[in-house]
Formats: sequence, C-alpha cells, structure tokens
Amino acid sequence: MSKENQSVGGFTLPGESGYEQLTMELADKWGADVIRDSDGTVLSDEILTAGYDIYSTICVIRDHNEWADANPDKLQSTLLMTDARTATDDGALTIPVMEDFFDEQFAVNDLPDAMKYWQVFDRTTGTELDRKEWQYDPASRSVIIEHPAPFHRYTVNFFAWRIWEEISMYNHTTNHWDKEHLKQIDPIYPETQEYLLTWMEDWCKTHPATNVVRFTSMFYNFVWIWGASERNRNRYTDWGSYDFTVSPRMLDLFAEKYGYSLTAEDFINGGKLHVTHMPPTDKQRDYMAFVNDFVITFGRKLIDIVHRYGKKAYVFYDDSWIGVEPTSPRFEEFGFDGLIKCVFSGFEVRLNAGVKVDTHEIRLHPYLFPVGLGGAPTFAPGGNPTLDAKKYWNHVRRALLRAKIDRIGLGGYLHLLKDFPDFVDYIADIADEFRSIRALHEAGAPALLPIRVGVLHAWGKLRPWTLSGHFHETYQHDLIHINEALSGFPIDVEFLDFDEIRKRDLSEFQVILNAGARGTAWSGGDAWADPALAEKITQFVYRGGVFLGVAAPSALTYDTGESVFALSGILGVDLDTPARICHGQWSYEEDRDQAQRLIPAGAQIPLHARVHLTDGQATVISSRDGAPTLTINDFGKGKGIYLSGFETTLENNRMLLTLLLDAAGISAINSGLITDNPKVEAAYFPASKTLVIANEADTPQSTSIEIDHTRRDFSDIPPYGTIIVSW
Amino acid sequence: MSKENQSVGGFTLPGESGYEQLTMELADKWGADVIRDSDGTVLSDEILTAGYDIYSTICVIRDHNEWADANPDKLQSTLLMTDARTATDDGALTIPVMEDFFDEQFAVNDLPDAMKYWQVFDRTTGTELDRKEWQYDPASRSVIIEHPAPFHRYTVNFFAWRIWEEISMYNHTTNHWDKEHLKQIDPIYPETQEYLLTWMEDWCKTHPATNVVRFTSMFYNFVWIWGASERNRNRYTDWGSYDFTVSPRMLDLFAEKYGYSLTAEDFINGGKLHVTHMPPTDKQRDYMAFVNDFVITFGRKLIDIVHRYGKKAYVFYDDSWIGVEPTSPRFEEFGFDGLIKCVFSGFEVRLNAGVKVDTHEIRLHPYLFPVGLGGAPTFAPGGNPTLDAKKYWNHVRRALLRAKIDRIGLGGYLHLLKDFPDFVDYIADIADEFRSIRALHEAGAPALLPIRVGVLHAWGKLRPWTLSGHFHETYQHDLIHINEALSGFPIDVEFLDFDEIRKRDLSEFQVILNAGARGTAWSGGDAWADPALAEKITQFVYRGGVFLGVAAPSALTYDTGESVFALSGILGVDLDTPARICHGQWSYEEDRDQAQRLIPAGAQIPLHARVHLTDGQATVISSRDGAPTLTINDFGKGKGIYLSGFETTLENNRMLLTLLLDAAGISAINSGLITDNPKVEAAYFPASKTLVIANEADTPQSTSIEIDHTRRDFSDIPPYGTIIVSW
Repeated sequence: MSKENQSVGGFTLPGESGYEQLTMELADKWGADVIRDSDGTVLSDEILTAGYDIYSTICVIRDHNEWADANPDKLQSTLLMTDARTATDDGALTIPVMEDFFDEQFAVNDLPDAMKYWQVFDRTTGTELDRKEWQYDPASRSVIIEHPAPFHRYTVNFFAWRIWEEISMYNHTTNHWDKEHLKQIDPIYPETQEYLLTWMEDWCKTHPATNVVRFTSMFYNFVWIWGASERNRNRYTDWGSYDFTVSPRMLDLFAEKYGYSLTAEDFINGGKLHVTHMPPTDKQRDYMAFVNDFVITFGRKLIDIVHRYGKKAYVFYDDSWIGVEPTSPRFEEFGFDGLIKCVFSGFEVRLNAGVKVDTHEIRLHPYLFPVGLGGAPTFAPGGNPTLDAKKYWNHVRRALLRAKIDRIGLGGYLHLLKDFPDFVDYIADIADEFRSIRALHEAGAPALLPIRVGVLHAWGKLRPWTLSGHFHETYQHDLIHINEALSGFPIDVEFLDFDEIRKRDLSEFQVILNAGARGTAWSGGDAWADPALAEKITQFVYRGGVFLGVAAPSALTYDTGESVFALSGILGVDLDTPARICHGQWSYEEDRDQAQRLIPAGAQIPLHARVHLTDGQATVISSRDGAPTLTINDFGKGKGIYLSGFETTLENNRMLLTLLLDAAGISAINSGLITDNPKVEAAYFPASKTLVIANEADTPQSTSIEIDHTRRDFSDIPPYGTIIVSW
Repeated sequence: MSKENQSVGGFTLPGESGYEQLTMELADKWGADVIRDSDGTVLSDEILTAGYDIYSTICVIRDHNEWADANPDKLQSTLLMTDARTATDDGALTIPVMEDFFDEQFAVNDLPDAMKYWQVFDRTTGTELDRKEWQYDPASRSVIIEHPAPFHRYTVNFFAWRIWEEISMYNHTTNHWDKEHLKQIDPIYPETQEYLLTWMEDWCKTHPATNVVRFTSMFYNFVWIWGASERNRNRYTDWGSYDFTVSPRMLDLFAEKYGYSLTAEDFINGGKLHVTHMPPTDKQRDYMAFVNDFVITFGRKLIDIVHRYGKKAYVFYDDSWIGVEPTSPRFEEFGFDGLIKCVFSGFEVRLNAGVKVDTHEIRLHPYLFPVGLGGAPTFAPGGNPTLDAKKYWNHVRRALLRAKIDRIGLGGYLHLLKDFPDFVDYIADIADEFRSIRALHEAGAPALLPIRVGVLHAWGKLRPWTLSGHFHETYQHDLIHINEALSGFPIDVEFLDFDEIRKRDLSEFQVILNAGARGTAWSGGDAWADPALAEKITQFVYRGGVFLGVAAPSALTYDTGESVFALSGILGVDLDTPARICHGQWSYEEDRDQAQRLIPAGAQIPLHARVHLTDGQATVISSRDGAPTLTINDFGKGKGIYLSGFETTLENNRMLLTLLLDAAGISAINSGLITDNPKVEAAYFPASKTLVIANEADTPQSTSIEIDHTRRDFSDIPPYGTIIVSW
C-alpha cells in the first residue's frame, strides 16, 4: 500500500456552513472522503459541490411538528405506573396519575382504546382491582378508588402520550434552549406511514447532493422517563428496553398476531419495568420480536425509497434504535448499506464490526462540542481534547487491531477547533493510523490464538459485547469490563444464550464464560433451573473444557437447592447466603506460586460476591477480606475457574488473558501476540508480515516480542503510541 | 441495707479440692454463700462441711460409658448429608457416606429402623431417587447408584450415631487429652429412661451434702458437626437448632403424635439444615414443640427425684440445652428452682432475668481458665484478667441496672489466681457492687421512660434477646447489636413474633422494631407475604406509632412485588436490587440540623443494605457511599425510621436511644435516666431515691444529671467506674 492510499479515505468529516474554508482545509488534512451534516446544520452549496461524498442525517419520526399538531392521536406513547399511594380508613383514595411525571414529556392518554389497558393494583396484596372498583376523572386526571382496603397501597398503570421527543428534550433542557418542542410521531398508524413515505420521497427529491442518508436511527427511542420533581428527573433510563414502542394499537396488533393479549402490567412489572440487565420473560421476547418485525417491515419501505433515488442508507446505532437490533439475524432484511456507531470503548468497535452490513463506520470521541457527556469542558477553556482523543483511541485501537472497521469519523462543529491545533494534528495521525490498520485487515486477517471463548448470558447474540449502552452506563456490571478486555484479545469470542448453548456442540469452545450478579441477565437467572444446562456444561468441563465464572455464575434465583451456583460442582465454590451462616468454611492457603504466574503486578480482583469452598478441593489463588477471589478447580480433564469480580485495567486484562490461556493449555510463546509487558499489546498480520505494537499506558514503555523464534526489543514506545513494523 | 448485708451472699464460688484454704479465703473475701464443683472436679469433705450451700454439676446424658458400651443402640444420633458427588458417564456412582465427617464423632447407623429414613437425592434436578435406584454397602459404608444420570450431582441423607459427646470432644481435642471418649446416651429409649431414673436416684443418695443440683443442661446438645478434614473441622455450629435430637425413634413417635412423617430432608434442607437465623418452617416448629414436650416430660421426672431428696434443681442454660427453651411458656412445667446463664453481654442478663424461675444466676467472665474462648491468655503470662473482667462487667452492669438478677458466680480453678491479686480484689468490688444493685431492685423497680419497644422477628418470645448464642457467634447480625444496646436502656422491651403481632393491640407500643438481612428470621422472611401484617403496622404508624427498620426490614423474599420492603410506604425507602439498576434515584441533601440533634459525635452507621428513596418524601439524616444510612419519614401521625445497619458502641447506643425517644416524642429531661455524656449511663431507683451512674468508657468521664429539677455534676468518674448516690 502506498502512502497516497493511506492518507485519504475512510474518514467522515462534519461540515459546517459559514466555515467553508476550514471545512476544506480539514478535509484535506485528515484525508476525508465524506462530509456530513450535523444535527441542526445544513451544508452550504460550496461544500456540497466540492467533490466529496455527502452524508445527510435524518431522524424519521421527529421534525414533523405541523403534522403532529394536526394529528395529536398519532404521537408516540408509553405505559407508566404511578408511585404507590396508601389508603387510610378515611374513605376514597384519589391518585392523580401525572403527579409523579414530567408533564412536558407526558400527557395522559384517556381515549377509549387506551383506557381499556389501564389497570389499578392493590400492591399490598399484589392483585388487580376489578374495573368496577375504580373510575377515572378526566378533569382532575385522577383515578378514584371509592372503597379501598384501609392501609393498602395502590398504583395505576396508564397510557401516556409522549409529547416531547426525548433526545431533543435532553438537548433542549441541557442547553437551556428557547424553541419549539419537537414531537415524535408513531409509524404504527397507517396515516403516519402514508405521511412518512411521502415525506421520504420528497426528501430524496430535494437532496440530490446527498450520497448517503443516515437514519438516526429508526422509529422508537430507548426508554427515558423523566419525573415531575427536579430531584427525580431521571426516573428511568434503559438503552435496551422497549417500553417506548408501546401503544394501544401496537398491543392490539400483537394480540391479533400472537393470539394472546399483553397487559399493561406485562410491561410495568410492579414498577420495575423490564430492565435489559434482567433476564427477559417469554412475553417480552415475543413482544420484542413483534416490534422488530414491524420496524423492519416499515423501515424497509423507507430504505427502498432511498435506494430508488440512487442513495445509500446507513443507520446510526443509538437514540431511536429500538426495534432495529443490528445483531439479530433479521437485520439484513432492512437492506441498510452501512452502520455507524459512536464509540467510547473497544467493545463498541467489536459490536459494530460484527454486524452483517457492507460498511462499518465508527464515530470517535470526543465530539467537537464545548463540553462532553459528563459536562466537563472539551473544546472550551480547561479542556484537553487531544488527551481525551488519545485515551479514547487507546481503548478503540486494540479492538480495531482484532476486527476490521471501514470508516471513522467525527461529529460536531469544526469552528470549535481554532484554539486546538494539536488536536487537529493528532486527528490527522489517528486517521493515518486507522487507514494503515484497515489496510492490514484488507491484506489478510490478524493472527489469533487457538482459543474460542463462549460468553453465555440470557441475551446471547441479541446483546453481544454491549450490555445496554455505553461503558459509563453499565460499569457496575462485571461483564462489561470483561467484554471490554476481550475486545482487544487475539482470541475468538462468541456470545451464546441459553437456548443456543443447549443446541451447540461445545467442543467448538475452549472456554465457556458466565459473569454477573445473581438473578441478572448476565449470570442468567432462572435459566439455570433447567438441569440440562448444568449437565451439558459439566460434561464439557469433564471432557477438558474450561468454565470461567465471575461474581455469581450459574446462580439459581431460589435458595431451596443444594447449592446456589448450578455449577458449584465444577467451580468447587458456592455463594455465601444467610442460610449458611452457621456453616463453617474450609480454611485454605493461597497458592503463591500460581498467583505469581497468573496475576501480574498491579492486578486487583474486586470482591463482588462472597463464596466458600464446597469440598475443599479448589485451589485458592487469591483472597480478600477472608473470601476467595480467584480459585481454580480441576474437574475431569477440565477446570472451573472462579473470579469474584472483574474490572478492566491493563494489568487485569492481562490477568484475564493469562487465566484463559493457562486454563485452556494454550501457549502464546513465539506467537507475537503476547508481549512481556501488560501495558503493551500486539497484533500480528501474517499476510502482511506486519506487527502492530500498541502502548496502552500514559508513560513510555518497552517490550520484547518473539515471532518465528526471532525476538526483537522495542524501547521507549511513547505514551499511547503505536509501532507498525514488518517482520 | 447495711454493709453487712451487702458484703455476703448471692455469690457462687467454684471450690477446688487440694486448695481448701484458698477456697475458704476467697469465699470470705468475695462474700460467697455457695460453693460449686467444676467440670471434672470433686469437692473435698473439708469444703462440703464448711457451712456453705453446695452446688453440684451433673450432665445427665454423659458419664455413663459403661452402660453406653453395653447399649450401643441407645446412643444419640443425627442426620447428615454427604457432600455432593458428580456422576460421569462411566457407570455407577459410589458415595462413601462417612468420607466428609469426623469419624471420631460419628458412626453410620444402618440399622433397619434408621435405613428407612435414608434418602438419596439427585441435586441437579432436586428430586429424590426411588429406593430401588440405590443400595447401601455396609462393608464400604457406601451408597451405590447403579445408573446415575451422567453429570448430575448426588447426595446421601443418612443417620449417624454420635459416638463422642461434643462438649467433651471439644475440651478433649483443644486440651490434647489422652483419655476415654465420653459418649452420650439418648433418653428417647425407654431403657435409657429407666437407667437414668435409677442413676438420678442413686446420685441423690450419694450426694447428701449437695443443696442444689445443677443440670448441664438436659439431654440434647446444640448442633456441632465436625468434618473429616482438619481444614473443615467446624462444618456446622448452631446454638439453637434441633438436629442433635433426631433419632429414628424420635421421628416415629413424632409421626404417631402429629399424624404426618418427617423425612430426613425436612432436617437436611439441601445441606443447609435449618439455622436459627432463618425463619422456621411449620414442620420445624412442630418438631421443636414435640421435642420440647419430651424433654419437659422426662426432665420433670428427674427433677422430681431431686426435689424428693430435698435438693433444689437449677439448670445451666448452655451446652445440651436443646428442648429446654427457658423462655417458652411451658418452661415452668420442668419445676426448676433456678436458671444459670454464663454471660459475656448485657442481653444475656436480660434473657436470664426474663425467665420465669425463682433464682436467676449469672456466671461471669472471664472463667478461671488459663486461656479464654478465643485462645488468648487469661490466667496465664500475658493475660490481664482484671481488665477482661472490667470490660465484661461493663457490658453486664448496664443490664443489671434494668433487670433484677439474684446471684453471680465464677467458674474454673481457684489455684490459677495466685499471681493475680488485683483480680481477686476486683471481684470483691464487683460482688459488693452487684449486691448493692440487687438491693436497690429489691427495694423497688428502677424508673423507666414511658416507651415500650416491640422487637418483631420470626421467633419472638422463643428467642428473645439472644439470637443464637453469644455475641461473638452472632455479631454479623444487626439485631444482636440492637438487643445489646436495648439491654441497658431505661425502656420497656418486648419480643414479638408474627403470630403474636397479628393478635396484639399495638397501641400498647410506641415503637415496633424490625432488623435484619433479607430472608432471615430477624427481618422475618416470608412472613411478610401476609398483607395483614403490613396493614396492621401501617395503621399503627398512621395513628402515631413509630416503625424502626434496620438493614432489610419487612423484606419480602421474592422480587415480584412493587417493593421489596412490605413497609416501604411507611419507611419511604426501599431496597436496591439489580432489577432497579436503570431506575434513577431521588437526590437529597442530608438534614444537618437533625443529624446534629440525633447523632452523637463518634456515632457511625454501617451500610449493611443499600436503599433508595421511594417518593422523595423521607428526610435523609445521613448517608454513606451514596446511599442513605438514616432516614425519617412522616406517615400520618407517626414515623418510619430507617437505619442501614447498627453496631453497638457507646455513641451508637446513645444514637439509638435518642432516635427512639425523639420519634416517639418522649422527653427524658429531668428523669435522671439520660446523662449529657454518651459514655455514661444512669439508672434511678425511686423507691430507694438512689441514682446509679456507670462510666462505660476506658477513660475518666464527667457528666451532669437532673432529677426533680435538681442538677448535679459528677466529674472524673474512673474508667468503668460506678457511682451510687442518694438523691
């Protein structure tokens, strides 16, 4: 590959009208081949005609306020549950249904087709009230229970219109805008569909310069429920759940197709809703599949229009992505040409790279905004966007070395860059580095160690890599740390749900991994009640496989069994519970030799669960506060490994990789894939005979690497620096 | 009361043969009126005839080895479960049943009447195997499962003889004795009963000098199961559970009386057994009542013999106390004249004082042994028994000020005192102090503040004050810390179980308290599934009562409801669970003014559970690591108070008392019952017009106290010192 090839292409630049010269300069400097508009900007003709491909962003369900105002019964909806109110012995109980919710986001839907789904529950007994026992007063927007049971607690499940599109609500509120609230229309109604198809056609006609239409994303936002009080504005946020797709019509259509009706309570679930971190119910899976089908079916019609106009259709994987499910087998039915994902972390790169679509593009951080997501300055006084960019790139790069991504890009406003010339230079470096790595992938896949890890959880391939959103939204879960670590390892990773693992030949795997708190989707919850699972994995380990469990692996949700971990027999450890507080525990000595071999200096294992040895046979490698944190148990020809928690750091990542390889009996010697310094990772591309070395520390590092019995030393690799060498 | 009265009486001295002069000297110095023998000692005639009352210790079921050897099928038994063994696909699974257990404690009972209770479980499916699917091989003491399901885990429930009485096993092993193992015979068999009645008669005849027969205790020891491996010697210890009463005959008799049979699994419970810290099952309660009835019925026969010989019968409340249940309403049926309890803590004093019996005696610590329970030196080089005694007395004294105890005493070997003259002096002081306090009680009850606290848990009056043994065995539970704090407060305390609270008029109480981890007997477990409970306590608070919840109060064991705490409506907080991880939480500011008023300097609230505000109305007084630790919620005319944990310290005790009084609206001003220094407590005896002030700190303290509008200052009260003054 020539320098020329490397220095141009695969880069999407956010253009900015009024800064045409800057746009052209940066496009040249960064090797951009595409210019995109940003939310709220329109590209000028000067940019549109400068010879670049043009991406245009559309949000299908937003920016139709005129139509929305004329069709208020075609807005999107959701189901809400009031907080519980306690009845006294003083007579009727009145529950004002909107009192707990942000009234700029929600409005009561008391139309007859919605009211039929309303429910009132006595939460003290857990029973639904008969419809005759309550009435709704539209004037006071209140449910009145004439004869409540004294001192019982009552809630109302009700339908609400969503009257402010949530992403613009957030931007509006955060930036203290003073403009019209954007609404979101619901394509579940035939009238909305008709309107949108016409609108899409018109849009294509009026945007001849656009090569790629970027959908943000399709129709339904992830769930984001705001409370009435500023002290409780964020009542609920789940990047993965489906409550914002619900409408009376959606439920009616579901009942027609599935032959059974869903109730409001099927969504409300005692006010807990169904968070993605919990195992899905069968009804929830049915409903998700139903919505997915609708989004594909109608989405496809819009994409077909785009294609008819000779444009490509890309989807941005965030915001109103619900029902899109890019990792599901049905995703290809949309006909999208590309998928764009904004990334903070390595796992998001792997998530994107794994989707079946022609073009995989990642949007890098930081965005060219004055402040970042957390509110800290970026392109503003006090900000250090170059350092931010290095740190994000540091996470992203290790995943880019393992899986091919086609394009990178930025978002935001170019004019903010004027005081940050070093950032402009650094992005030029990143762009070249990205193009070099991409070229290596194109020449031939990177080398992998002969180990395949199956990550087992309730969602499997529907929620691979991510749990439910970005790292900072899910950091409490061990699995996101593990996925982030795995995203940059030179090993094969596959995600499995419980149905799939029942069907698969496990001899394809060296390791099955299960990690999470008890009762969650990540450890699996009630799935483990099926003895066939324990049977199959036990056999797998007995034959030589490795089961790696973290926190509460294979944990049953009930306490009536002989163990909490269904796989305690393999692991040789089980969870401490109050029922075992009178049981003595096996004493042990930590195996210092193994600790020395397996745990790099600086690695630390958090104590996210307390376990005890079951039969005293497991080797305790390390412990903390009197509880084992790392144990290894020989079982048949295989091993059960237990980790009490995992946090992704350079040293901990190396520990995890060492554990996997050691347990599976895989040698990495002479592979060029493991350095002798946990802060430095390496990838080898055999077709190009090229080694890439990445210093992931914020200090200079040295390392030594051996391939084909030739060892080479690399000293003083700069902080976060990359070395690409022929071998 | 005269000095003469105070300086003699109410003191039980352990006599020691061979040290007759020392015995007499100390009896005189400490004002002893009783001399007792100790385990393994026999008092000499010189002591027996010195004019003191004589206590003699008997352990009914031990010290009959000759008869035991002649009647090996009359030994005591228990049910054991083997550790789980995993079957492979290589054919039969053999489980050697004794492999996991200490074979000096247990021997397989494979007699036909025992074998009928044996069970084999497939623990992977949770199902019992049909009897045809397994066989027992006596030669190898193994259960053989010919055709196990491959990779399932199996356990065996089996009957074992207990061949070494556990208390002597412990003493023997700890002290490396080289003598015969003492066995324990089981009075459930008519032959044993006949033998023991004769023995008791003979014993009385041959011990004419004995005034009081001290039973240690009756027939069945608390459960103490030792493992085969020295690394797992202590497999299970529960001071309160009944597994050591079980025998085939006991189960047969139970079935006859109750009309249903208990299985081994009813005891084994998946290997968890039924620890006292967990809510009892109905079967467990039936079985306990059945054993209690047997112990009373046969015990009464022995006590009647003692009485016929003109002796009194006291019971020592420890060791083989199972089935005695001193706080049950049936205890009086034994006809005991006194109850002796060894005490480390205040709650044990209250436990003893509450039993319906003529004489309440406490055995103080430290025992006159070279080392203490934990193995640290006491009467040995490096020991400081005087300081130990002061610290124990410090805990005990505050409870003695609230409830009358009749006698104190020591245990152990007097000759160990020769190097510890300050200890001898200090015990003389304690003895006088005890007699002074007793005299105050005799003149009239101490003043109380007008507040009655109902402590609600699954065991109620059957397990008041203690949870299951001593403080150091139960310190992990918030409730033992609370009970210890309550034991020295000038307030009325009553223990209630869930049946009782349903029936009681709660207006007798100012506060209902519920404290414990989720699912335990102390928070209550499944009892809260009955909505009548939440209804009744909600009404109680609405009318003006206080509900104080600690850790996981009123926690339901299932996650399907609207809240985890059945009383979240009163508390305004609920437990964080994984199902709520996407739910935002109410922000709050700590109420510094209330914190200042309610939380003394130095008080600390442990975070034993994480809760969130439910409706934002509760006032957060303090928080830790982002979770509320103390909240107060107004509800109707009453309050719900939540504490995330409790640890007994001087400052924390004061915090708890302040909280109780403040919430109940009780003023302690001018009562003489609350000092202005959390390290100093006070008791006032109106009939004697006497105030007792106790410095509970290890440093000199000062305080000021007001009674009847007269304020007096007390400065430089010595560490752990007591002041008794007329007012």
